[in-house]
Amino acid sequence: MNIKEMVLEKANKAKLASRILSGVSTAVKDKALVDMAEGLLDGKEKLKKENEKDLKYAHDKGLSSALIDRLTLNDKGIEGMASGLKEIAVLPDPVGEVTHIWQRPNGLQVGKIRVPLGVVGIIYESRPNVTADAVGLCVKSGNSVILRGGSEAINSNIAIASILLNSATKAGLPDGCIQLIDITDRQAIMDMIKLDDYIDLIVARGGIDLIKTVTENSTVPVAKHSAGVCHTYVDKDADLKMAEEISFNAKVQRPGVCNAMETLLVHKDVAADFLPNMILRYKNAGVEIRGCKETKNIIPDVKEASEEDWYTEYLDLILSIKIVKDIDDAIDHIMKYGSHHSDAIVTKDYQRAMKFLKEVDSAAVYVNASTRFTDGNEFGLGAELGISTQKLHSRGPMGLEDLTSQKYIIFGNGQIRS
Amino acid sequence: MNIKEMVLEKANKAKLASRILSGVSTAVKDKALVDMAEGLLDGKEKLKKENEKDLKYAHDKGLSSALIDRLTLNDKGIEGMASGLKEIAVLPDPVGEVTHIWQRPNGLQVGKIRVPLGVVGIIYESRPNVTADAVGLCVKSGNSVILRGGSEAINSNIAIASILLNSATKAGLPDGCIQLIDITDRQAIMDMIKLDDYIDLIVARGGIDLIKTVTENSTVPVAKHSAGVCHTYVDKDADLKMAEEISFNAKVQRPGVCNAMETLLVHKDVAADFLPNMILRYKNAGVEIRGCKETKNIIPDVKEASEEDWYTEYLDLILSIKIVKDIDDAIDHIMKYGSHHSDAIVTKDYQRAMKFLKEVDSAAVYVNASTRFTDGNEFGLGAELGISTQKLHSRGPMGLEDLTSQKYIIFGNGQIRS
Repeated sequence: MNIKEMVLEKANKAKLASRILSGVSTAVKDKALVDMAEGLLDGKEKLKKENEKDLKYAHDKGLSSALIDRLTLNDKGIEGMASGLKEIAVLPDPVGEVTHIWQRPNGLQVGKIRVPLGVVGIIYESRPNVTADAVGLCVKSGNSVILRGGSEAINSNIAIASILLNSATKAGLPDGCIQLIDITDRQAIMDMIKLDDYIDLIVARGGIDLIKTVTENSTVPVAKHSAGVCHTYVDKDADLKMAEEISFNAKVQRPGVCNAMETLLVHKDVAADFLPNMILRYKNAGVEIRGCKETKNIIPDVKEASEEDWYTEYLDLILSIKIVKDIDDAIDHIMKYGSHHSDAIVTKDYQRAMKFLKEVDSAAVYVNASTRFTDGNEFGLGAELGISTQKLHSRGPMGLEDLTSQKYIIFGNGQIRS
Repeated sequence: MNIKEMVLEKANKAKLASRILSGVSTAVKDKALVDMAEGLLDGKEKLKKENEKDLKYAHDKGLSSALIDRLTLNDKGIEGMASGLKEIAVLPDPVGEVTHIWQRPNGLQVGKIRVPLGVVGIIYESRPNVTADAVGLCVKSGNSVILRGGSEAINSNIAIASILLNSATKAGLPDGCIQLIDITDRQAIMDMIKLDDYIDLIVARGGIDLIKTVTENSTVPVAKHSAGVCHTYVDKDADLKMAEEISFNAKVQRPGVCNAMETLLVHKDVAADFLPNMILRYKNAGVEIRGCKETKNIIPDVKEASEEDWYTEYLDLILSIKIVKDIDDAIDHIMKYGSHHSDAIVTKDYQRAMKFLKEVDSAAVYVNASTRFTDGNEFGLGAELGISTQKLHSRGPMGLEDLTSQKYIIFGNGQIRS
């Protein structure tokens, strides 16, 4: 069997299972999730042993320590996956919710009901805990899942998926509802994203190259989990103490994630007041500053930002700073250089707060809060499969509801069209 | 300027206009829609003259009379376009609706608000009235629109779009919000569907070849308006008189549209009672019947259906009939051969009605009504841009809401993440 046939076989099994899974009760799905969590805890030693293989390979290959860190599955990581699954078990099941029902003049009752998408394919890189999160969210929302993790985590992913599938089928879920593509050849991705007769959604999480390859070649609809070039705009009427706390938190609290701030925009009228203290605080926290010309006029010893900097997702303790002449200038900058992920304004002015909320076209737009809150748990959606930076099918953190579609149901009593 | 550059220029104009359009008030948009309707009525003679060119070309090319019929713009057709625009003007504006807002334990208020998609590209065939519908729906939902109609309607489409743009800009909409690709070369489609930095959604309406080309090559998310292989299942506990009326209506009332029935499924226990009268009525209406073996056992003089027939969208007075052994057999048939568009059950049995609603995975699932109701107006959504046969971003008739996305808005008072 060649790669294409192997991928097709898995997709076909997933599709067959999805029809059964769509009818499984919430109680059975929740029991399966809890059993899957227990399965991971029981399999701790096996998981760590398999993870060792990946880590050894990563060391041999000379991968960076950051990457090796993300790859590592220790007791805490395994417990985290298990508790993630248990948390999903207690979330409300979106399937079967009738979101709206209305009556037409001819007596037809027309309603919309949430249904699973069917089969969700997930293409992701490095962190093996994504495997458990993705399976949990897909199972709960009634979807079969096809996993395609990175080659660097292949042994860990195989071990996790096999435990999850074993627990799931014992708990009554259909065999086939969890599929792992265990072929590390990149051709498997190319084959997978062409299977629009089998897969309903591809979620792509990873670097720009991966996202580009998937978007350009997929015939299945794609949800992109792409870069976060996030901004904080300090307005001239900002509470400068609040602005400092928010700006510091957005950059420093966890710089390596997509909702961390990459560019700070400051109104020219408050720049001289605000920036010296702010930059000092950043420097003390080890943040490298790259400023515009006007920033350098105030703090001469910062590095000058290049045009490229404004587009860059550093994911690191680096921050670009630009002084803007007004809110329109700030919004223009965000629209031009941003990635439509998360952007915040700090202001006491009502009209500018409302203007910013309205005009900034990003998945999450904030007034007076840190962009670091863009997260399924922080928003109260429960776990997330990723953060969509596109406008379809959903935007922002993708939770259980975002893994469903809605179909129309129509209750008649003999209506025909005249 | 080559084709690629021309398409890019139009897309760029559309994108620039979309940012302005997203902030235009409902009152201005509604006024523009009414003015556009008046513009079409005032331009009747010009429109008919331009349409004549298309009709002459169609005649010379020997196109079918059905196609020429769809292409023809007469007074009634123009009045229909105008009243369609006026109807859109009175529909509620989806933009700005906060669909949900909730408070988090830290005091953050997190909400979801409807926003325009940005730029919608529409690729369609033949009927020039789609041009006015598409522009009306996009303008009302705050989106710029890029139209790419069929080459056979190019003169009509240019004339319609030019009147609409003229009225729109006079009423205060941004220049550039209505773009027509006036290059009939198919290369323009290929260039358009690669512009994911400019276009947010491609709506593809047309034959299987067009849909396939667009799906396989687009890097922009695509909404498919594809085939409708719709079924009616007459259960053993159906009211047979009601079943006859619904089955007749679903096939005969307007056979050339996507929500017309193509296959009738009949429970074996009622087939001998139900089919003779039903088939006689169909034959009197000029419907050609293609039946399964069991159907032929009851009515020997019908043609036998081939495997291919079950997959076929006839769009004509042709019907395939299959006798099934139970509801599961009926659902299996629909899942295998159907196009997930619209399917109905006729039954008096509560449990089978509910089972059918739950298990049939189609955009619209009916109990005791004709599939012909799958339509934006009939469902009460107002006009529609097409009927989506896929699960993302929306399913079924695409109205104004389906041309919006939702972004998160977050109201804070200094929250930072710990």
